[in-house]
Amino acid sequence: MVIVGELINTSREDVRLADERKDTEYIQRLAKAQYEAGAHYIDVNCGTQVLSEPELMQWLVNIVQNTVDCPLCIDSANPIVLDAGLAQIKTGKKPMINSITAEEKTFAAVLPLVKKYNSNIVALCLDDNGMPQTLEDRVVIIDKLVGELMSNGVGGNEIYLDPLVRPVSTDKSAGVEVLKTLVYIREKYPEIHSICGLSNVSFGLPNRKVLNQTFMIQTMAMGMDSYILNPLDRKMMGFIHSSNALLGNDSYCRNYLTAYKNGLYETSCDC
Amino acid sequence: MVIVGELINTSREDVRLADERKDTEYIQRLAKAQYEAGAHYIDVNCGTQVLSEPELMQWLVNIVQNTVDCPLCIDSANPIVLDAGLAQIKTGKKPMINSITAEEKTFAAVLPLVKKYNSNIVALCLDDNGMPQTLEDRVVIIDKLVGELMSNGVGGNEIYLDPLVRPVSTDKSAGVEVLKTLVYIREKYPEIHSICGLSNVSFGLPNRKVLNQTFMIQTMAMGMDSYILNPLDRKMMGFIHSSNALLGNDSYCRNYLTAYKNGLYETSCDC
Repeated sequence: MVIVGELINTSREDVRLADERKDTEYIQRLAKAQYEAGAHYIDVNCGTQVLSEPELMQWLVNIVQNTVDCPLCIDSANPIVLDAGLAQIKTGKKPMINSITAEEKTFAAVLPLVKKYNSNIVALCLDDNGMPQTLEDRVVIIDKLVGELMSNGVGGNEIYLDPLVRPVSTDKSAGVEVLKTLVYIREKYPEIHSICGLSNVSFGLPNRKVLNQTFMIQTMAMGMDSYILNPLDRKMMGFIHSSNALLGNDSYCRNYLTAYKNGLYETSCDC
Repeated sequence: MVIVGELINTSREDVRLADERKDTEYIQRLAKAQYEAGAHYIDVNCGTQVLSEPELMQWLVNIVQNTVDCPLCIDSANPIVLDAGLAQIKTGKKPMINSITAEEKTFAAVLPLVKKYNSNIVALCLDDNGMPQTLEDRVVIIDKLVGELMSNGVGGNEIYLDPLVRPVSTDKSAGVEVLKTLVYIREKYPEIHSICGLSNVSFGLPNRKVLNQTFMIQTMAMGMDSYILNPLDRKMMGFIHSSNALLGNDSYCRNYLTAYKNGLYETSCDC
């Protein structure tokens, strides 16, 4: 299970303000809290700040890697920003790039960065035909992405396939098609990881937390092994431990029991 | 989705006391509350009261069927008690028997009751070789149970297969083997239901609610369509609605939104 902590993102008001004030301490606290809560990567995204994105990315990357002892996930739609961020990474901590797609232009621009920085890569299920809807749409894109990445020397276990999660509010099959895609990935490419962000699925609906928790448990049961999420969400982290115990990934439920002893499940009410 | 309300069970202290005091009103309230919370069947079990079980079953059955407009699930390990309870059922509400097994003696004693009362039947994955552990153990029992029930005229959609859930605390594969079994049932017998109680899986572990919720979501994702549970557990019922929405069973998320508007997800804290 790989958890990518998603909190250092300028689409969040607090992070944007910290960036504007150059509040190093605030970013340090966010990195540290996520790391201590169990994040394996710290995602850094400043895509809302288009004009200053490359410099901001470098500033954030340096703060995070000087604060916590885990690798970074460099997250931008702009290859120039990815390159700027990756160039700051200290050796010895293999980063993750978020993301490459099967869109011709993006693929051509990001692949050299994956090779140059010997990076793990989030491969998003998207091509020049637009957003995939069904399993069949995704299979075409996945086969293409995996084929081209691996033929270019990227290892299977360096690839994190993101099936691209769409809201169930506008298409009732949006969740099920992702679950089917995960079964396909697990069976066809057992060495390749799968990853997603959880909040898209609940877009437009009330009480999104419950939907996001439910979708995490469903996708994990189908073989998803990596998530981009908020590791400070105790309820979500609790469900990761309970899922692992029930999926046979936790001998003698040791991790579940440790999490319980450490107070992960303590809440102010019985729910 | 079929929900069997489990609360009228003399293994619960309150129900045992109500039985001893012949507190009709208490049983009525329990039946009504479960029905209003969404139960499709009301389970009645007085197996702890061995000496008076047949009379107690009849007393309970009559209270419940005179209180709520839904069928009953007659739950006993003793075929004499099943017969006594079933004999009280008014026509027009097809009951459920909980349960038959592939143990030779039990099968021979319960099958005639299924036929006599034209009943739905919970078929528990258990034979004279004891508790199944792996998928392979269960496949042998399931094929036998389904074959013998159907060759005796029981319809596929009258059968509710219970894979027999064991605690993950003593066997880390206990949950996964059930999930695999559900995939087998769905693929081999698409017209047959699957059902389970949820609490066995978490036996011996702390914070059982979270494990039971997680296991419900996992099993539902694999095709389980019926549960024996406490329908007054709002959190659990909330996860049934969120699961249905994400599994594509809820057009425009109508049921999820209705549940939300009716306050199902309101809690005193944000969790």
